Amino acid sequence: MTEGDTKILLVVLDGLGGVPRNNKTELEAAWVPNLDRLAAKSSLGLSVPVDVGITPGSGPAHLALFGYDPIHYLVGRGVVEALGVGLDIKPGDLCARANFANVGPDGKVRDRRAGRIPTEVCAELCGRLRKGIGRIEDVELLIEPGKEHRFVVVFRGRGLEEGLTDSDPLHEGVAPLEVRPLRSEAAKSSRVANAFIKQSAKILAEEKQANYVLLRGLARPPVIPTMHERYKLNPACIAVYPMYRGLAKLVGMEVLETGETWDSEVATVQKHFSDFDFFYLHFKETDRAGEDGDFDAKVELIEKFDEEIMPHLTSMGFDVLCITGDHSTPSVLKSHSWHAVPLLISSRYVRPQVRIEEFGERACARGNLGYLRARQVMNLLLAHGLRLKKFGA
Amino acid sequence: MTEGDTKILLVVLDGLGGVPRNNKTELEAAWVPNLDRLAAKSSLGLSVPVDVGITPGSGPAHLALFGYDPIHYLVGRGVVEALGVGLDIKPGDLCARANFANVGPDGKVRDRRAGRIPTEVCAELCGRLRKGIGRIEDVELLIEPGKEHRFVVVFRGRGLEEGLTDSDPLHEGVAPLEVRPLRSEAAKSSRVANAFIKQSAKILAEEKQANYVLLRGLARPPVIPTMHERYKLNPACIAVYPMYRGLAKLVGMEVLETGETWDSEVATVQKHFSDFDFFYLHFKETDRAGEDGDFDAKVELIEKFDEEIMPHLTSMGFDVLCITGDHSTPSVLKSHSWHAVPLLISSRYVRPQVRIEEFGERACARGNLGYLRARQVMNLLLAHGLRLKKFGA
Repeated sequence: MTEGDTKILLVVLDGLGGVPRNNKTELEAAWVPNLDRLAAKSSLGLSVPVDVGITPGSGPAHLALFGYDPIHYLVGRGVVEALGVGLDIKPGDLCARANFANVGPDGKVRDRRAGRIPTEVCAELCGRLRKGIGRIEDVELLIEPGKEHRFVVVFRGRGLEEGLTDSDPLHEGVAPLEVRPLRSEAAKSSRVANAFIKQSAKILAEEKQANYVLLRGLARPPVIPTMHERYKLNPACIAVYPMYRGLAKLVGMEVLETGETWDSEVATVQKHFSDFDFFYLHFKETDRAGEDGDFDAKVELIEKFDEEIMPHLTSMGFDVLCITGDHSTPSVLKSHSWHAVPLLISSRYVRPQVRIEEFGERACARGNLGYLRARQVMNLLLAHGLRLKKFGA
Repeated sequence: MTEGDTKILLVVLDGLGGVPRNNKTELEAAWVPNLDRLAAKSSLGLSVPVDVGITPGSGPAHLALFGYDPIHYLVGRGVVEALGVGLDIKPGDLCARANFANVGPDGKVRDRRAGRIPTEVCAELCGRLRKGIGRIEDVELLIEPGKEHRFVVVFRGRGLEEGLTDSDPLHEGVAPLEVRPLRSEAAKSSRVANAFIKQSAKILAEEKQANYVLLRGLARPPVIPTMHERYKLNPACIAVYPMYRGLAKLVGMEVLETGETWDSEVATVQKHFSDFDFFYLHFKETDRAGEDGDFDAKVELIEKFDEEIMPHLTSMGFDVLCITGDHSTPSVLKSHSWHAVPLLISSRYVRPQVRIEEFGERACARGNLGYLRARQVMNLLLAHGLRLKKFGA
């Protein structure tokens, strides 16, 4: 590995890949002259986030793009949720996804979502739990509301090992479960989690709807080498949504302050261009349009990216420019999917391709990068940045 | 994994892949308008049964298609033979491939095949061994004739471990070998196998030709999780030949009664359509034509499949339809080969491809599934059947 002075930009259009409606995917249906022009002189391929046929969550999909084996470095549900609400989690923190729920006088769950209480009520209840509980043993609590009945609890203290069952029974009409340790090292974690549930129930006892809490996905952030340790990169993240900012922080990126618009994100890259040598730039909205099943909205967002963002990205002077998605989110499926993700890599060292004049799933299937694992993309970006040494003599 | 209500059909045209004669493979030379029409709106690729350059036997080739790593789950020679003669083998059975042979007065093998005795004589001799031997220690014997001098012995009893040498010296003019244990746990197995050889020799002593038996490939069936355990599928097998029915049983498929014709096999699928959610439908004859080196016969069989079978398969209402082979059997080579196998996957969620209007090796090489391992095909079929959960959050 050499510390080069080349600059790499990884652009992630969340959920970019699609499935055809009327024989064209969202990306194929979009009018994207800038992307098409770049594709004609770039290397294209299709990237498989985790494995063939496997639909990835955002955590593994991003870790793979950052070059980490997503099967080795697992990001538990609680951790993803904690990152998603913007909590600044640290190594050793035990994170749980939590629901406000309703439990009847018979001790059985009547409503796992407490009637989907409004987000403001959730925030107010989280405040009451924070004030009412304080510490449990030596363990500090971070409690942060999410949307509706959802919130996150982070337990911060010594020896809070993983390996715990959920208290959420996942069904109504049965009693909530104890959090049980799956290995002896997790005894303290389970004790603390159960104490939290018990104290919460006391505080919420008079509530009509949200009178109980259910925990699941208790997990610690993975112990993961930073991108600087692995690649000798000085990396920065430009993303609006907390989860992506949190994932970037897990691998040691500097998470930059930025505004909520795409223009603002681009301006942030521009402003910090000379401060970092690797930039991860994330755009969320394409995924959301896919999740909503709104084919046309996804097309429009891709067109907007091409028209408003692409000219800036190509003119900033990056040595390596990669445009891809973390996974596919076909509008047709209204969800993440297993389909491979369009991948474009531009540098002065790419081999161009025969008869490819557009950026799209079909073009990428004929691209000279073929099918590759998402976690191999980072190798290519480093290579095109002349940042990898020869292997062997 | 979710238990969906989608239905998957995996069609295996045995030995489908070919090598060109006059610049076209058997599949490319065949007039297959139905397959071509389906290919134009399907995902195509080339599937590698075991590894690049490796010619697979039918056992590993099928296990791979069923989603099992064929290098991890080995199916020993004796087991394949036992399945091939239709023996109902059970976990722990020790299976051996056996030959009737001729040994001279000097104790050396004169003919490893006993002059290729007729199949009827083989059956008659197997009957005599069955009657004459009964049990050896606590071990029950299953003895089943194959073709000519070939037969199968299955030893059924406690503690019959694997790890044994062959008694067949593979050469003539030398003495038959003892079956030796390669590890101490296999001591009983070797004792029983050698006792079987000795008692057989006594029973056959007066025979002019087949006066001895040689054993090889002693193996137990692999301990293998069922497709229901792995995929929560309720799978059925429709195959005429015992070996394929046996392989399907190894992975827990329900093996359906069916007639010997292709029409009858299809009728069996139709009849049981609502009883299962995964169907493995096997057609043997394409492989046999390849093994015979009969290019034209293989072409005709593929055309017959297209004309007579395809219309039924596409109209039955499967959510996912996969048409492929277990391996290639090019007529030019008259044997299984290492060439990758044409693969077609049809579902409402496939991405179609550019300028692909036919099903053939060349088209598949340009297909958007690229090259993949046969054992990844099952992942794709489950994914297209919406039967896999998301990995990570």
